[in-house]
Amino acid sequence: MKLHPLKLVTIVVEAVLDTRLRQDLLRLGAKGFTCTKADGEGSRGMRTDDLAGKNLRFETVVSDAVAERILTHLAEQYFPNYAVVAYVQDVSVVRGDKYV
Amino acid sequence: MKLHPLKLVTIVVEAVLDTRLRQDLLRLGAKGFTCTKADGEGSRGMRTDDLAGKNLRFETVVSDAVAERILTHLAEQYFPNYAVVAYVQDVSVVRGDKYV
Amino acid sequence: MKLHPLKLVTIVVEAVLDTRLRQDLLRLGAKGFTCTKADGEGSRGMRTDDLAGKNLRFETVVSDAVAERILTHLAEQYFPNYAVVAYVQDVSVVRGDKYV
Repeated sequence: MKLHPLKLVTIVVEAVLDTRLRQDLLRLGAKGFTCTKADGEGSRGMRTDDLAGKNLRFETVVSDAVAERILTHLAEQYFPNYAVVAYVQDVSVVRGDKYV
Repeated sequence: MKLHPLKLVTIVVEAVLDTRLRQDLLRLGAKGFTCTKADGEGSRGMRTDDLAGKNLRFETVVSDAVAERILTHLAEQYFPNYAVVAYVQDVSVVRGDKYV
Repeated sequence: MKLHPLKLVTIVVEAVLDTRLRQDLLRLGAKGFTCTKADGEGSRGMRTDDLAGKNLRFETVVSDAVAERILTHLAEQYFPNYAVVAYVQDVSVVRGDKYV
């Protein structure tokens, strides 16, 4: 089984950013993403577990260059105004050509 | 805390594959899995965010050999016919004997 | 884009442990966490997919020291009595000071 090294970018945002983030991900070069409803407690001290599903957890498998582009965009456009968690990991994928 | 190096396999499939994938994972050697409802947008251009929860995100912690077996099976049996995302990562787990 | 190396700890527990685990994570040094509803099948042979959302999947980005503390606590206090999956991974995060 030949695997391809790529990046997994995971982003947790307030649900109000749903449409904007979807559009941004695709525009910045992601070929797709997976989104799950989430709640959480974060560094703003905002407790949201009584508001189940008020956050969204996006993940997208992308090239190194697209990962860098997404993180830079989030840092500039989202972080100043919203509670956002964003991290990147190495992944090995089947059928890597789908993602780049 | 002694940790054990294993593989985390993550698979996102259409919900119609739910029962089949659960059976396949266990048959191929996974000792368990976690499943969450998801939606997404993928390389088939299929927009599913208006159909919340139409995808399922499975993850399972397994040995290298079982990870290889699962990915090979997906590539042969699922990828030709379905929109599937599958990737593998290194993880360190507590109580590694549970997973192998 | 400057990224910071941290640990991602993922924990899957029965929903009955929700409040207890949230409190433990924060007390042990996590600055936040993300929680999603999940189901699964595990090493106890317990089939829960007919009880959708009976498990919870927590993830938290923390320092090495806090990851160690969380895993040790789980091993001592949760594993003897509950079906728990816990694993740790390397992640690179934007704005690392939020998490430590």
